[in-house]
Amino acid sequence: MSHLMERLTEKQRTEVKRQMAIYSQGVQEIIPTEELEIKIAKSIIENRPLKVKLGLDPSAPDVHLGHTVVLNKLRQFQENGHTIQLIIGDFTGKIGDPTGKSIARKQLTDEDVKHNAKTYFEQFGKIMDMSKVELHFNSQWLSKLNFEEVIQLAGKITVARLLERDDFEERIAFGKPISLHEFFYPLMQGYDSVILECDIELGGTDQHFNILMGRHFQEKFGKDKQVALLMPLIEGLDGVEKMSKSKKNYIGIDESPQEMYGKAMSIPDELMDKYFELVTDLTPVQIQKIKEEIKSGILHPRDAKMLLGKTIVRMYHGLDAAEQAEQHFIQVFQQGSIPDEIPVIEWRGNEEISVIDLLVNVKLFQSKSEARRMIENRGIKINGEKVRDVQQQISITDGLIIQVGKRKFVKMIIQS
Amino acid sequence: MSHLMERLTEKQRTEVKRQMAIYSQGVQEIIPTEELEIKIAKSIIENRPLKVKLGLDPSAPDVHLGHTVVLNKLRQFQENGHTIQLIIGDFTGKIGDPTGKSIARKQLTDEDVKHNAKTYFEQFGKIMDMSKVELHFNSQWLSKLNFEEVIQLAGKITVARLLERDDFEERIAFGKPISLHEFFYPLMQGYDSVILECDIELGGTDQHFNILMGRHFQEKFGKDKQVALLMPLIEGLDGVEKMSKSKKNYIGIDESPQEMYGKAMSIPDELMDKYFELVTDLTPVQIQKIKEEIKSGILHPRDAKMLLGKTIVRMYHGLDAAEQAEQHFIQVFQQGSIPDEIPVIEWRGNEEISVIDLLVNVKLFQSKSEARRMIENRGIKINGEKVRDVQQQISITDGLIIQVGKRKFVKMIIQS
Repeated sequence: MSHLMERLTEKQRTEVKRQMAIYSQGVQEIIPTEELEIKIAKSIIENRPLKVKLGLDPSAPDVHLGHTVVLNKLRQFQENGHTIQLIIGDFTGKIGDPTGKSIARKQLTDEDVKHNAKTYFEQFGKIMDMSKVELHFNSQWLSKLNFEEVIQLAGKITVARLLERDDFEERIAFGKPISLHEFFYPLMQGYDSVILECDIELGGTDQHFNILMGRHFQEKFGKDKQVALLMPLIEGLDGVEKMSKSKKNYIGIDESPQEMYGKAMSIPDELMDKYFELVTDLTPVQIQKIKEEIKSGILHPRDAKMLLGKTIVRMYHGLDAAEQAEQHFIQVFQQGSIPDEIPVIEWRGNEEISVIDLLVNVKLFQSKSEARRMIENRGIKINGEKVRDVQQQISITDGLIIQVGKRKFVKMIIQS
Repeated sequence: MSHLMERLTEKQRTEVKRQMAIYSQGVQEIIPTEELEIKIAKSIIENRPLKVKLGLDPSAPDVHLGHTVVLNKLRQFQENGHTIQLIIGDFTGKIGDPTGKSIARKQLTDEDVKHNAKTYFEQFGKIMDMSKVELHFNSQWLSKLNFEEVIQLAGKITVARLLERDDFEERIAFGKPISLHEFFYPLMQGYDSVILECDIELGGTDQHFNILMGRHFQEKFGKDKQVALLMPLIEGLDGVEKMSKSKKNYIGIDESPQEMYGKAMSIPDELMDKYFELVTDLTPVQIQKIKEEIKSGILHPRDAKMLLGKTIVRMYHGLDAAEQAEQHFIQVFQQGSIPDEIPVIEWRGNEEISVIDLLVNVKLFQSKSEARRMIENRGIKINGEKVRDVQQQISITDGLIIQVGKRKFVKMIIQS
């Protein structure tokens, strides 16, 4: 490294440092940091953009803020002239689960894969410039491998190494079965990096093992090893569980400005710093200032959270929508009449429920007819929005507020 | 079973029992015995021969008596009208060892495979009727599998099940690496049985795990499960290690009558029963009689061993050659002058050595020139054969006897 750094001009050296500072911000781990520095230095000397990979699950994408932690980091690479390689793991998706045991991993058709890729494109377009992104489908090379080539690939890794993956290790320890084909998912992800000669692979910390497979196989195939850049996983609105669709604790980037804003206001205070750092586009300097102002008491936590909500809405819907969402929130929840203490209803399950059933279920009404009457009289609000349709289906989210008339409120808390 | 047996005539039932008695003789384990009985019963009712599989290593075959334990059992099935399926694992052989670590598993060309198959055919022809044998090469179906099909196959077995194989279990326990591709060898062997719809698979007890893979995969693919028929492994001339080429403790079926006979005479007395049972074609009644006569003292162990030697030579070279080998042995080793007690030389290594170096090495002579002179004077015998060429290369085998002049003998014992 020192040798290479000596070849750099002062200006080039400053540029390496500048990029390193950006990419390091908010990161959980870079493996190894020195190699990232070398890669950046080489890209400057050779005037060659780095290839920065992100692997994507081919199943129906519903991008939420949890995903944007990684996507924002990708954008930073793009902003500095590097090439983003999105790889859709359609080969895995088309296979499904050969044991038939996992309902989650259903078999996808070509049509599904195409549709999902399009959805990714549309959603990612809100975060990065998709015209500059490389899109790959790994079935392109994986479906062509024959048994002999698979054996050659398998010959480059040991069973013990694979069993080190946390979830495998745990299942072996608890006597839970691991089907042999599962060993191939990390192999495929690693082989993708061999084929595309990736310089860097991004992912959440839960991808630690799989991303290191890329380094392992690139080395075995005599290629330059990629650098692993691991981002923290962000907790959802409940402040406990990792943000995910299945936990219903997420803010989707396709959600309406009001929904986004309202949900942002419901995150626990302790998570604010992390959200500012990982899901907004504010600069490190801006974020530092906010943190300090909260700490010193200049900025009230509620106001900081409103700034967070506004920033998030602005990122996905623009400034006007952000200001409107803020106004709406102030009107309904602050100038309005939501008391500080609201009775809480614990809720299980995640199906949709009709508004009438919900009202009876949480015991706001004794009978369906009473509930219907109140809806028809426009006396019910869900998250500050009047319910106008007695047939309306409600998807319960954590922190959802039901208001009956002017003064009666309950707040839903999801029990997982 | 009882249901099926009721459908049999008395004559058919007797036939099932008769075949069961033959196949069970000398066997280590039948898994499961009841299913073998059912298979035989069905083959009688439907007048359909059973498919009896033996998998063969595609590397250079040098068939010795250790192999014939299984081959003799195969012949019994053939004699009763069943079909022998020989499967040459050429797919594995052509791959070689992708890790490059095993020298033993070198990559074979099509030419090698063809040549080795021919060699098998010639050698097996001494034991069974090759015109009735089915010959298969597993590359025919295995090389056609694509990655997706491999994943489907891998989805039908768990990692824990594979780790149960003794050698894998041991290597994990001792922290020795298992390359992932090694998991595929038992899968392939199992899949071969799926493709060929084998009824029975034969092998040594060391094939226990691999043969049960056939049952496992046949079931997973919705086929009838094969019966595993496991034969004991036979110790070599040293009486300790399993007979094998690398241990130099074997009797090859291509060896000369004199070599065969001489080697047979060198096996330890304790192994005689086992040899009679597993490597000769004597009937159970004949073998029982020999055992009893030895026990009661009617038959001297040395005479029993001569009968064994003669039987083995007769099986591979015919009766005349057997009688000549016996005469030769009597003349050289009995009427001749080999004393009962011969000094023993322990020997390490397995390279060939020139006769002169050998003589000096075992300290029969002080110098090479003395040794050369004695050879030129025809004063040296190896295993009773005069050495006529001072350049002769000697391959040391266990029990090899060097004779100098009339009265000086040493016996070589291989140290492994």
